[in-house]
Amino acid sequence: MSKLGTLYGIGVGPGGEELLTLKAIRTIEKCDVIIAPSAMNGGVSIAYETCKNFIKENQEVVISHFPMGKPDKEKKVFDAFKTIEKYLKDGKDVAFLTIGDAFVYSTYIYLLKYIKEQDYKTETIPGITSFCASATVADKILVIGDEPLLIVPGCRIDCIKDEKYVVIMKFYNQEENVLNYLDEKGFDYVCVQRAYREGEKILNTREEILNNKDYMSLIIAHRDSEF
Amino acid sequence: MSKLGTLYGIGVGPGGEELLTLKAIRTIEKCDVIIAPSAMNGGVSIAYETCKNFIKENQEVVISHFPMGKPDKEKKVFDAFKTIEKYLKDGKDVAFLTIGDAFVYSTYIYLLKYIKEQDYKTETIPGITSFCASATVADKILVIGDEPLLIVPGCRIDCIKDEKYVVIMKFYNQEENVLNYLDEKGFDYVCVQRAYREGEKILNTREEILNNKDYMSLIIAHRDSEF
Repeated sequence: MSKLGTLYGIGVGPGGEELLTLKAIRTIEKCDVIIAPSAMNGGVSIAYETCKNFIKENQEVVISHFPMGKPDKEKKVFDAFKTIEKYLKDGKDVAFLTIGDAFVYSTYIYLLKYIKEQDYKTETIPGITSFCASATVADKILVIGDEPLLIVPGCRIDCIKDEKYVVIMKFYNQEENVLNYLDEKGFDYVCVQRAYREGEKILNTREEILNNKDYMSLIIAHRDSEF
Repeated sequence: MSKLGTLYGIGVGPGGEELLTLKAIRTIEKCDVIIAPSAMNGGVSIAYETCKNFIKENQEVVISHFPMGKPDKEKKVFDAFKTIEKYLKDGKDVAFLTIGDAFVYSTYIYLLKYIKEQDYKTETIPGITSFCASATVADKILVIGDEPLLIVPGCRIDCIKDEKYVVIMKFYNQEENVLNYLDEKGFDYVCVQRAYREGEKILNTREEILNNKDYMSLIIAHRDSEF
């Protein structure tokens, strides 16, 4: 039997070529096939756009549609797995691009599960998380001293207990509920959209956040902090 | 009055040149002065070692001693601020290197406070966090779905409430207490030391962790997770 390919899961950061690591670039350059997700069918892939200057003409590129949180997501992930498996069986190394970090709320994690069940060789490469990138854009720290840092999706905002440093992610269409909770609990906050990408915005007030809803948003919130 | 310099706070990742971003490298290359912390007086600076291949001979390098959690830390940070201020007043751009991400538990945050009080221009560049790097080394995810992720120092382990996905940092000499807590609460865990650096280790059992204590360690813990 011929040699099987390896799947490389690559965190490409928040978007913006400058936040790619050398390891991400070198891995992309050595793969035969590049697979990049797009949130919309036929839409642009942020992950592909981030890396396209390092992809050569002889590399095969597949843009794979992964609907975010839609009911057919599981089927789409399985379809992507079957596509990738075909290349791996052919002995081709595959780079799967994922925005942010590969092991933080990524579709890649679901995909990796199928790949590992079949015992293919895999390697995952970390990326700059959206919250680290957004913190530098807003010039607001994430956490200091002996304090915990809680990263929490909007629908689980009530998981905040006595933490002083919190990041809220994935709260599209739940903005009002999230902001009510933060206001009530005495948090200061800033909302960052599309850090390091076209359309980057820093929203400092409740009103600004409610008037500029965008799926690609996160909130950094502090209370009782000297920073 | 002549032009003042800018302070660039640069997250250089966990150590290991490959996890530097293009933006970190380009910023280091354009600065006049590079300041890198070392945990031990006269000891090596992990941050400097990570970047040294991108530092040219005509750049001034200062290794600054920052004792971790020792009583004279505040004075050392103030000394470093005075050193940096001198360069900024001379119109020199300064790169301050910090391992991991610049806004996650970094001494840079304390330093930045002094610099901002004096209204100097600053820019912070995000880095790969130790937990993202360690997760890929251990091949263990950080968080998925609608679950929160709690990052917590060892001395605050009791902040864990009902989270399924937890990272424990800074637990040197508290290993037993931390592991007792995790065992009692039904967590699986892996400990990663010195991810992407010389001496990298993955410790999978309680016994291994207790027999290989190292300051540069973190634990990724899951419970009730399918990943």
